[in-house]
Amino acid sequence: MTKLITTIDEMKNITKALHDQHRSIGFIPTMGALHDGHLKMMSLSAKENDVTIISIFVNPLQFGPHEDLDSYPRDIKSDTLKADSVGVDYIFHPTEKEMYPELPTIEVKAGRLASVLEGAERPGHFDGVVTVVNKLFNIVRPSTAYFGKKDAQQLAIVKKMVEDFNHSVEIKGVDIVREADGLAKSSRNIYLTDDERLEAVHLYKSLCLAQSLYVQGERNSAKIIAATHAYLEQYTSGTIETVAIYSYPELIEQHVIDGSIFISLAVKFSKARLIDNIIIEA
Amino acid sequence: MTKLITTIDEMKNITKALHDQHRSIGFIPTMGALHDGHLKMMSLSAKENDVTIISIFVNPLQFGPHEDLDSYPRDIKSDTLKADSVGVDYIFHPTEKEMYPELPTIEVKAGRLASVLEGAERPGHFDGVVTVVNKLFNIVRPSTAYFGKKDAQQLAIVKKMVEDFNHSVEIKGVDIVREADGLAKSSRNIYLTDDERLEAVHLYKSLCLAQSLYVQGERNSAKIIAATHAYLEQYTSGTIETVAIYSYPELIEQHVIDGSIFISLAVKFSKARLIDNIIIEA
Repeated sequence: MTKLITTIDEMKNITKALHDQHRSIGFIPTMGALHDGHLKMMSLSAKENDVTIISIFVNPLQFGPHEDLDSYPRDIKSDTLKADSVGVDYIFHPTEKEMYPELPTIEVKAGRLASVLEGAERPGHFDGVVTVVNKLFNIVRPSTAYFGKKDAQQLAIVKKMVEDFNHSVEIKGVDIVREADGLAKSSRNIYLTDDERLEAVHLYKSLCLAQSLYVQGERNSAKIIAATHAYLEQYTSGTIETVAIYSYPELIEQHVIDGSIFISLAVKFSKARLIDNIIIEA
Repeated sequence: MTKLITTIDEMKNITKALHDQHRSIGFIPTMGALHDGHLKMMSLSAKENDVTIISIFVNPLQFGPHEDLDSYPRDIKSDTLKADSVGVDYIFHPTEKEMYPELPTIEVKAGRLASVLEGAERPGHFDGVVTVVNKLFNIVRPSTAYFGKKDAQQLAIVKKMVEDFNHSVEIKGVDIVREADGLAKSSRNIYLTDDERLEAVHLYKSLCLAQSLYVQGERNSAKIIAATHAYLEQYTSGTIETVAIYSYPELIEQHVIDGSIFISLAVKFSKARLIDNIIIEA
């Protein structure tokens, strides 16, 4: 049965005991509202580790002033049942006050990697992410931590943090889980209207189009982007905020594609801003 | 016999093995040029812990562009002998390239606590300090880390980092070690001319004067600062950069003294900038 832990001290005591027993810890940090994408990571962790810990914490520092912090879905009971069903041993579910008795004085900044794409759209977002993930890594001290490739920029930034901070954790990127029609699973999909839900499938389809151009030999980013953009304009009513091609995981914009890349989309619908991407390894 | 460790991987393997054996680790981060102040902390650590690890790393990130990075004293042989004499088990002595294969992308910033006193005099200095100490804590994972009270602002900042980052280490502040005449031991004292060395004793004497005014009941900071300043002007030829009274460890400037404080000095001589302070607990 999954155990709910709400204080940092108790969580640290548990992870210390696990370390003393030489048991490997798999960790998945989440903001709750668990969907199949999360559950896949948890199943994987349960298979690969002695113990699986997840965190459920809606981190205020990674929301902008006009973002959906207050309305972000919270349902710890339902989340606990889901986590339990895939073999999660502990849910670390602290209050905001437990994690931030006051705003941190010593700050963690995501720097250059946060200056593009989602980071440029959401100033401060990735600073909030690295701030909380750094804390969680120190509290849980996992052997392996799992992050979804859907948030590809986040995955690249967390990997860089582990390198720069010398954390002793292996970061595993887990493939995007999609609905039957291709829409990437997301806690924010519930905000889509019925019509938007039908249109949303075209995010993935546009990425498939982009990938097929790449596979056919196109290396001029502008051409791939233009085709993807035109496709999205034709098939969705959302505002196309981003269609971009960046090197991965360095996150440098590519004019002529060279090496591994990721093609990244952001489309804003009436109440949901959806992101999706495809990583193409060179 | 003290062992010299130069790679992060080797150091991590050793600390992992020590943790597996449930042995407590005392840690003293230094930039070398070890003096009695350092050795006192190492002796204390050797007494209080199963294993004592020190680091010797002249951290380029905490030096300003016009500071003494290149001329900072380096003598690993002499330092190793000294460390060995007080029971240090391991010296972690990485190269700059080992610690910073490239400049960190994910940055640690000391924030508000670095905006006053030494932090104001030396922009970026404390960002460099927290950057390296965070890395060292993750590599060494000490049970207890020792910091000199001479760098009182640094001590306050490191304590805050441990709190904000949820590091599992106890921070101990260790009293200033002084020469027979009262001059605080420092790696930079060797830069003093003979005349300046004689004058330098008055830094401590001026602090004693300040403390005696406090003990006599004076709570008006400006009056204590003025008397201290006047004393230093009379007895030293150096440039008086700082005479200040701040709350401790919050580092808020005090006009009317209330609670614990520290009185802080910085005096610039021809080739050495000396700092000293006295912490008065309420």
